[in-house]
Amino acid sequence: MVTIAIDAMGSDLGPKVSVEGAAKVSLTPGAPELVLVGDEAVLRRLLTVHEHDRAKIRIAHAARFVPQDAKPRAALDELPDASILRAAQIVQAGEADVLVSAGNTGAVTLACARTFTRLPGVARAALGAVYPTERRRGEKDDPFSLILDAGLTLDPSADDLVAFAVMGSAYAARISRHPRPRVALLSIGAEPTKGTPAVVEAHARLKELGCIEFIGNIEGMDIPKGTADVVVTAGFTGNIVLKMLEGVADTVMRLGRYAGDSSVRYKAGLALLAPAVKKLRKATDWQQYGGAPLLGFDHVCIKAHGRSTERAIGNAIKVAARAARSELVRSIREGLAELEPTERRAEP
Amino acid sequence: MVTIAIDAMGSDLGPKVSVEGAAKVSLTPGAPELVLVGDEAVLRRLLTVHEHDRAKIRIAHAARFVPQDAKPRAALDELPDASILRAAQIVQAGEADVLVSAGNTGAVTLACARTFTRLPGVARAALGAVYPTERRRGEKDDPFSLILDAGLTLDPSADDLVAFAVMGSAYAARISRHPRPRVALLSIGAEPTKGTPAVVEAHARLKELGCIEFIGNIEGMDIPKGTADVVVTAGFTGNIVLKMLEGVADTVMRLGRYAGDSSVRYKAGLALLAPAVKKLRKATDWQQYGGAPLLGFDHVCIKAHGRSTERAIGNAIKVAARAARSELVRSIREGLAELEPTERRAEP
Repeated sequence: MVTIAIDAMGSDLGPKVSVEGAAKVSLTPGAPELVLVGDEAVLRRLLTVHEHDRAKIRIAHAARFVPQDAKPRAALDELPDASILRAAQIVQAGEADVLVSAGNTGAVTLACARTFTRLPGVARAALGAVYPTERRRGEKDDPFSLILDAGLTLDPSADDLVAFAVMGSAYAARISRHPRPRVALLSIGAEPTKGTPAVVEAHARLKELGCIEFIGNIEGMDIPKGTADVVVTAGFTGNIVLKMLEGVADTVMRLGRYAGDSSVRYKAGLALLAPAVKKLRKATDWQQYGGAPLLGFDHVCIKAHGRSTERAIGNAIKVAARAARSELVRSIREGLAELEPTERRAEP
Repeated sequence: MVTIAIDAMGSDLGPKVSVEGAAKVSLTPGAPELVLVGDEAVLRRLLTVHEHDRAKIRIAHAARFVPQDAKPRAALDELPDASILRAAQIVQAGEADVLVSAGNTGAVTLACARTFTRLPGVARAALGAVYPTERRRGEKDDPFSLILDAGLTLDPSADDLVAFAVMGSAYAARISRHPRPRVALLSIGAEPTKGTPAVVEAHARLKELGCIEFIGNIEGMDIPKGTADVVVTAGFTGNIVLKMLEGVADTVMRLGRYAGDSSVRYKAGLALLAPAVKKLRKATDWQQYGGAPLLGFDHVCIKAHGRSTERAIGNAIKVAARAARSELVRSIREGLAELEPTERRAEP
């Protein structure tokens, strides 16, 4: 039976959304077991007001938590009993399979780095993010691509990028159920020689790899198209790309206005499009899709957005359960194992 | 009197667009003097069929040219008489003030690097690009921001980024006539500590600089807003950002379609918006705005897009003339002079 540990305290909207999300999931058929980690009194009180399956939910007490605006390192040093650390320890101890948190991103990733063990072949972890694309693919006719890193490893080496590609491919295959996800490097041209030295070196290595479907470099315009199922890039670039995408709907309205045609015709057109634009705005809020997977450790963490609603937390829990059931970590290990010769060659 | 040297041969559409663009400009009041560089017979034949001011245009012969698909280094080595090299030499010799080319970007930048002299305080040159924003600013109520580097210096140091900021500020002040352009670093958060080591170090230096209006870091969503008049970033990021923007109109149509509302209402809305979207698509083709300035040398080069029409070449010539008349290089020199103490401190 799969068990998910949920850091219930640190989100912008407080423990309410985590408890409500967990409660709803507990009532679904084949729901995983859930451990809500946080202030026992608070969580118990919240549970009483939300219908749930008592057999599926237990509470693990953590007296304190890391606020969203806290400095991660200092906060974790001062709060050894913080809910995020307790939740990570529960997973590390084998009492749960996957961690879910909507807390302070820096604290969540640091708590995982301090508690979990990095997988062989992984020098630096990656935070993935899914975003909507035109192209649909995979078993579920899924309109999302995965981009990693989303802002954790700002300036990865070629080794790091290769590891990101392998981890992202495994994630897309297991979670989005693409039989063989198309993996690309984000660069400034299709030619293998285009890009930073790290990108050029990673390109050469990825071409040699049998374990993933590497389609080469993609460029900026390919991102929204969904040319690749898995987009591999530095955390600095990935973060900027994702924030540009997040704002794309607003941007368009702005640029549309800039385009200058403020005639009645234009206003009427916008009015007719309003519902689609609203959907678009929702679709481009990438952080609502069940959260961002933290990859590279012997356990997976699904980082839900700080502003997550109870629905978003529910999605994050479902993704976490799928990660556990599909043995995501094992398939990442297997992929990374194929790298090791290359990695060794890369040693000075 | 200002003189512009035009590499007339290397564009995708051939010498016709350069000759036609130059001919049209020559007829405008206060037009600069123009030197068309390329195959004399070809250019003369084209000139005869386009009305122009004979007093304003002369031809400088160059037997050969660098094709768009050529490898820049090899091509320049094999073709010492290439039109781009000849045109750069004419500028270096003082027979013209500014260079304009729609040729092979790598060959144009390399020809400048081989022919011109780097300004003191500039380790690596930058290619700028203007893109449309919501915000309008400056004397001309200009809806464009300048982003640099656009893809020439992929991985700049802190020194390079600081120099880009100074050069971009001078360009925006002289060409777009912003009294005091707002300069920002593109990063992953507003805090001075956010970003790669180079970005963090550049932020600290720029805060100390009196000669430019540094507003700090901006993020991905600020790019289309136009929060900054000058966006400073690595060429790798800048190239990806620009290509994402270039495709934004198509992207929207795609995402709009993805948003799923393919009802009659939606189709009708799109039909009504078609003219605005067409304008938007044009507006987001950043390479049409008179070309990209190559900054960092003792002479300016305006790199027009390879697919430039005769109108785009005309715009590039006008921008080049403005750069000469406003003494852009002198104001860049003055800005860079203020850096030198910092630069020296930066030496190991």
